[in-house]
Amino acid sequence: MTAEIIAVGTELLLGQIANTNAQFLSQKLSEVGVSSYFQTVVGDNPDRLKSALEIAANRADVIITTGGLGPTADDLTKEIIAEFCGLDLVLDEESLKSIEQRFARMGKDMAENNVKQAEMPRDCVILKNNHGTAPGAIVECNEKTFIMLPGPPFEMKSMFNEHVYHYLAKKTGEVIFSKHLRVFGIGESDLEMKLGDVMKSENPTIAMYAKPGEVTLRITTMADDSATAERLLEPLKSKVYETLGDMVYGEGEDYSLQAAVVDKLKQHKLKVSFAESCTGGLAAAKLTKIAGASEVFDCGVVTYSNEQKEKLLNVPREMLEKFGAVSKEMAIAMAEGVRELANSDIGVGITGIAGPGGGTEEKPVGLVYIGICDNNGKTEYMELNLAGEREIIRERTAMYALDMVRRKIKE
Amino acid sequence: MTAEIIAVGTELLLGQIANTNAQFLSQKLSEVGVSSYFQTVVGDNPDRLKSALEIAANRADVIITTGGLGPTADDLTKEIIAEFCGLDLVLDEESLKSIEQRFARMGKDMAENNVKQAEMPRDCVILKNNHGTAPGAIVECNEKTFIMLPGPPFEMKSMFNEHVYHYLAKKTGEVIFSKHLRVFGIGESDLEMKLGDVMKSENPTIAMYAKPGEVTLRITTMADDSATAERLLEPLKSKVYETLGDMVYGEGEDYSLQAAVVDKLKQHKLKVSFAESCTGGLAAAKLTKIAGASEVFDCGVVTYSNEQKEKLLNVPREMLEKFGAVSKEMAIAMAEGVRELANSDIGVGITGIAGPGGGTEEKPVGLVYIGICDNNGKTEYMELNLAGEREIIRERTAMYALDMVRRKIKE
Repeated sequence: MTAEIIAVGTELLLGQIANTNAQFLSQKLSEVGVSSYFQTVVGDNPDRLKSALEIAANRADVIITTGGLGPTADDLTKEIIAEFCGLDLVLDEESLKSIEQRFARMGKDMAENNVKQAEMPRDCVILKNNHGTAPGAIVECNEKTFIMLPGPPFEMKSMFNEHVYHYLAKKTGEVIFSKHLRVFGIGESDLEMKLGDVMKSENPTIAMYAKPGEVTLRITTMADDSATAERLLEPLKSKVYETLGDMVYGEGEDYSLQAAVVDKLKQHKLKVSFAESCTGGLAAAKLTKIAGASEVFDCGVVTYSNEQKEKLLNVPREMLEKFGAVSKEMAIAMAEGVRELANSDIGVGITGIAGPGGGTEEKPVGLVYIGICDNNGKTEYMELNLAGEREIIRERTAMYALDMVRRKIKE
Repeated sequence: MTAEIIAVGTELLLGQIANTNAQFLSQKLSEVGVSSYFQTVVGDNPDRLKSALEIAANRADVIITTGGLGPTADDLTKEIIAEFCGLDLVLDEESLKSIEQRFARMGKDMAENNVKQAEMPRDCVILKNNHGTAPGAIVECNEKTFIMLPGPPFEMKSMFNEHVYHYLAKKTGEVIFSKHLRVFGIGESDLEMKLGDVMKSENPTIAMYAKPGEVTLRITTMADDSATAERLLEPLKSKVYETLGDMVYGEGEDYSLQAAVVDKLKQHKLKVSFAESCTGGLAAAKLTKIAGASEVFDCGVVTYSNEQKEKLLNVPREMLEKFGAVSKEMAIAMAEGVRELANSDIGVGITGIAGPGGGTEEKPVGLVYIGICDNNGKTEYMELNLAGEREIIRERTAMYALDMVRRKIKE
């Protein structure tokens, strides 16, 4: 079964917003076993929308539209699809009531033109909108399925998850289960090489999604229920763990390295502190993004100048003079200094050259040292040579620092 | 003149990335007077790409593709367009040399399949890629213009700005000039009300783009040269300044509030320091995103626990007990404490409840205090009641703190 997503809205053609709806729907379609070969964006124009529908109905089984369900004269998706399928629009009393109630809850009067939102193609499946006024609709016509969803991403996503996902799964007969393994510290191509034949598995399948410095492996199978799925996914999952070891920091589509670090610190009842130079507070900001970080983090310092490195972290001036602010000695001294200052179990020191200026032949932009120490007096450091712009270097450095904390705890 | 953007890449159909290229190109096309009625996404499949090209060439004058210029067998955009136009591909020695040089600079050998990237449609305009290996191309054929750009956004954007913008402007004969005024601290609808009739101006036109907490006003006119444009834009620009005063923090599409703060601090030779609680380092991280921030920033501390607020910032325990960690008194005491610690001209203290936990009836999630003090002993604070998720509250708080620094300096 194939689907085409048609996003309707002049604001997309003007570049006022990005088509994130298409990204979300594409991911979900592939989860539920529907292939997608084309996507279209078209403005709020009846003739052009009609022509986009004709083209899509010619090359896909399922046509999913987003947008154009609003109350204004511009909003025409339902009208055009109804016409395309030879159906008239009929006022749906239940939808009207729910729109009126929504306005009442907000203490507002419903405008006359909102009535239009309750006029639905005859005999369609009505999709209730729990987060906005516009109901969605599914129409089956000439062996094609037309699914109309609202444009605002939050409304669209929840309507898809609540109603459309299962509607499509029933059609494909494929209920898909996935595990997401999150990996840090290895690039996409190295990972592919390391996993070798594991990547060729056919059931479960395995796919790779990369962000800078981070890769997600999705292992997917079809099954009748989640217990069967678990059993089917297990062998491949184990193979990945065997091959990658602690490069896998956790499981779950929305799990993050920061969350893994906070979880591990909590589990071992440890506290961490950061002394940051080139990252300027980014490592602390990332950790504290996680709710509950206060249990594992009391204190961080950003010591941008050498003077502050001396004053706050007790880094000896001779060391600064001998090795320079960007050196492994400095990273370790900063780690030890902040551990003492914060009275934490683990201390992390970060120093480097984020650029664009400040690099030399000997110490180029992208050279970074991260030092880490614990309450057993054990000290380590990592040297990184990162490529890219200032913000990419800072981002990746902060992530590497968090990953060092995670690995430190494991020992 | 009309254009259609065709994004080529299976990763878009799988939802692995959002089509941000289309958003960028749409904005630029409208700037340069080219209308866009459709956008298409198609996978790395020769037949489907061919059919997308046929449809696009039927309904647009200019077809812009992104992606499919890489070295692998999957990358077929150039090949298919050349075939579509009846052109053969010819090795371009200059492009090959520049690809080889790129590999040499990275200390790597060029793989055999990279040669393919230098094979260009006969008689095309070659677009040099300053940030990657794949050159782009423009082909004029059967009264249609085909513009092939690489997929990675950074490469694509810079190639468009350097080569394609003027190529299209020459075609439309419309050279458009814009000024971007950056505004902080007022929502979109309040701003619209405040500006009133100014928003209705027809030449120059004025448009509004909103991000959370921030709005950009774009004032646009057509002119033959930039001096004329300046003269045409000036009166409307002045009206905006008159109405909004110091809510406008600067001009320029890529100018940021952080950059405005760093610029102002530099200009007045002042240094700032931050003591952060709920933002956990985010204000410092944002400021240090700007290259050259080291001139105006030596030191920041993240004091997440009350103990550290006492120890590092000399906040009296009685104050903590009397007013609580989230209070205006605390924000001011933190500001004063960090100013002293860092020996800076301006000190900022940030404390609040970012949620999702930790809120009470009296002090709900989203309550934030920001304190600021200077070397004249003048102290101020701001109370915010922010809505949204933890990360949104933290982001907006950090931005408000930076904006307070900007306003402080003005006085």
